[in-house]
Amino acid sequence: MSERLDATTLLADLIRCPSVTPAEGGALALLDDVLTRAGFRVERPVFSEAGTPPVENLFATIGSGAPHFVFAGHTDVVPPGDMTHWAQPPFSGAVHDGHVWGRGAVDMKGGIAAFVAAVTDFLAARGGAPGTISLLVTGDEEGPAVNGTVKLLAFATERGHRFDAAIVGEPTNPVALGDAIKIGRRGSLSGTLTVHGRQGHVAYPHLADNPVPKLVKLVRRLTAEALDAGTEDFDPSNLEIVDLAVPSPAWNVIPAEARARFNIRFNALWTRDLLAAWLDSRLAEAAAGEISYELELETPSSEAFLTRSEALIGTLSAAIAAVTGRTPALSTSGGTSDARFIKDYCPVVEFGLVGKTMHQVDERAAIADLEALTAIYRRFLDLYFAA
Amino acid sequence: MSERLDATTLLADLIRCPSVTPAEGGALALLDDVLTRAGFRVERPVFSEAGTPPVENLFATIGSGAPHFVFAGHTDVVPPGDMTHWAQPPFSGAVHDGHVWGRGAVDMKGGIAAFVAAVTDFLAARGGAPGTISLLVTGDEEGPAVNGTVKLLAFATERGHRFDAAIVGEPTNPVALGDAIKIGRRGSLSGTLTVHGRQGHVAYPHLADNPVPKLVKLVRRLTAEALDAGTEDFDPSNLEIVDLAVPSPAWNVIPAEARARFNIRFNALWTRDLLAAWLDSRLAEAAAGEISYELELETPSSEAFLTRSEALIGTLSAAIAAVTGRTPALSTSGGTSDARFIKDYCPVVEFGLVGKTMHQVDERAAIADLEALTAIYRRFLDLYFAA
Ligand SMILES: [Zn+2]
Ligand SMILES: [Zn+2]
Repeated sequence: MSERLDATTLLADLIRCPSVTPAEGGALALLDDVLTRAGFRVERPVFSEAGTPPVENLFATIGSGAPHFVFAGHTDVVPPGDMTHWAQPPFSGAVHDGHVWGRGAVDMKGGIAAFVAAVTDFLAARGGAPGTISLLVTGDEEGPAVNGTVKLLAFATERGHRFDAAIVGEPTNPVALGDAIKIGRRGSLSGTLTVHGRQGHVAYPHLADNPVPKLVKLVRRLTAEALDAGTEDFDPSNLEIVDLAVPSPAWNVIPAEARARFNIRFNALWTRDLLAAWLDSRLAEAAAGEISYELELETPSSEAFLTRSEALIGTLSAAIAAVTGRTPALSTSGGTSDARFIKDYCPVVEFGLVGKTMHQVDERAAIADLEALTAIYRRFLDLYFAA
Repeated sequence: MSERLDATTLLADLIRCPSVTPAEGGALALLDDVLTRAGFRVERPVFSEAGTPPVENLFATIGSGAPHFVFAGHTDVVPPGDMTHWAQPPFSGAVHDGHVWGRGAVDMKGGIAAFVAAVTDFLAARGGAPGTISLLVTGDEEGPAVNGTVKLLAFATERGHRFDAAIVGEPTNPVALGDAIKIGRRGSLSGTLTVHGRQGHVAYPHLADNPVPKLVKLVRRLTAEALDAGTEDFDPSNLEIVDLAVPSPAWNVIPAEARARFNIRFNALWTRDLLAAWLDSRLAEAAAGEISYELELETPSSEAFLTRSEALIGTLSAAIAAVTGRTPALSTSGGTSDARFIKDYCPVVEFGLVGKTMHQVDERAAIADLEALTAIYRRFLDLYFAA
């Protein structure tokens, strides 16, 4: 019971659902309707956890048996910022000047529209699913990402699903469609370094112990040299200080403590445990027993990963080359995505639209790209299920 | 028309006026009443300025001609903090265990009670003022200090008053009454150092420019060495970083700017202008043309000063020695006080109660100290007006 879908129309409809994270905004209800009519079995689990808002998700599946292929994505979007700066209203889904305009157009309602159109067309052409095809769509990727894909994977696994390969439809192309597939991601670890001193009045420095120069010394040590020079597959690992703070500052008070917060993006040469040991040894050396400090690492962190499936990467690259004439670079750069959760279940790569306008004012997807991406996903399905 | 006043009773009455800065709390009305009955001409000017609350003040004068002596002080007090931590309620003025208890007991309603008692006793004994005696009492010393003594001095000057010497009744004794006179104060200069970078995502450090390591480098330079080794009269000058901040920090954002705030307490080897030049040269050297920074110095600052009147210092020291048997140290340490404003009008020193409990829970003045301080001020007046 499938029908032909137009990716451009579906994207415009999705943009008109104001699903600013964590709001559902009607986007999952719309997909539920479209996929149910296409013959999918659709479930809409809501996940929650103490301290976070409950979030709606969607799991849709069709067919049975192996191979079991997954398209994954998110309908939640980042806030539009100042609406008056947009050339087209951010939730209008306006089709103008060869583009579909609006928040989420490329990140990543456009990716979803393309894979839904590709899958329904494939199912229509094949008269059903040769194996199993599932769609994992979350409303919690741009937010804390605790009530989304990570729980949706467990949800599907509990119902007996075993996945063989996945594509996440995040915008991966820097400039032109076909530029790059993401075949892995760096890990991310955040932490807080707190140095303790003794509070006092600036007029009586001998009665106080200012933690700021001590913090500065430790921070200098952490930022003095690069963690590594990168690998064949990965950029260099990198530590950035993202915050400095003194609680309750006052002009005449030597503070009791001072803090620095940092984030490390790291490649496969490191793990959280190796970084913790590296931090401990650098800090202990710089402190030389004379600085009282505390290091607290955030949970969750994510480990670096690299997709090892040559079959998945090769099949997707072939589909991209056939449609665009380009050979995509195999990249691991950029921020995190839900691929970090999926990689624990099956080989996963990421490929979607051109990311240039994502998270910006005037986010928009070129209609030509949307049609080409749909054709790439469609071609991929042919190749994947022919193997 | 003077009457004998008891410093202990007056202090207890003053403490019962909850004059937490900038509130008048009834304290100036009480002094107005007492001083008017003692024959003073009392004025209660209210000063205000854009961006600050209006504050009540008191100027009382008696007699005429030279010499013109001034006692100065403040009735405003710092907040009591957690009231439940006090052994006696902070605005009870309880007389207990040989002490008068409450917020402001030593800083500095006790000093005011002692000089009012001493002056009224002196006037009664002399049958009037041999010259002129004035009292400058403000409600804005613990606050911004812009609507207090600085304006009260201008107010009195406009009315033709010329002062010859002044004592500020701030608590100057670290441990026992007679320990120390303050004969000057270090200057104070605050400033903000801002380093500009380029904001970006932690995953794309090459597109951003993190200002934090640059700020850290500049701060290291400012705190690397002492400004001086002190002088015969003054402690060493000292720079303290009192705040570090990154506006709108986020775990995954390389910040656009980072700031450090500092305060310098400096001796008579320096002026604001010399320090500004010192800061400029250190920062320019550390920046080496590669760090974009901005230095903003706060106004007002205060310059270091030293009272040069041997007569004033000698007379007060003699009175202290006669009453306590101690030879007071001549100190310039500690924070600022309104003496920094009075010094532009006449020689000024500071002497009052023991400061141990000031700004603390259970602030209290020993009745024996209160009586001895009254006797010291009384003896001082005898010596000063005999000369
Ligand atoms: Zn995304
Ligand atoms: Zn005071």
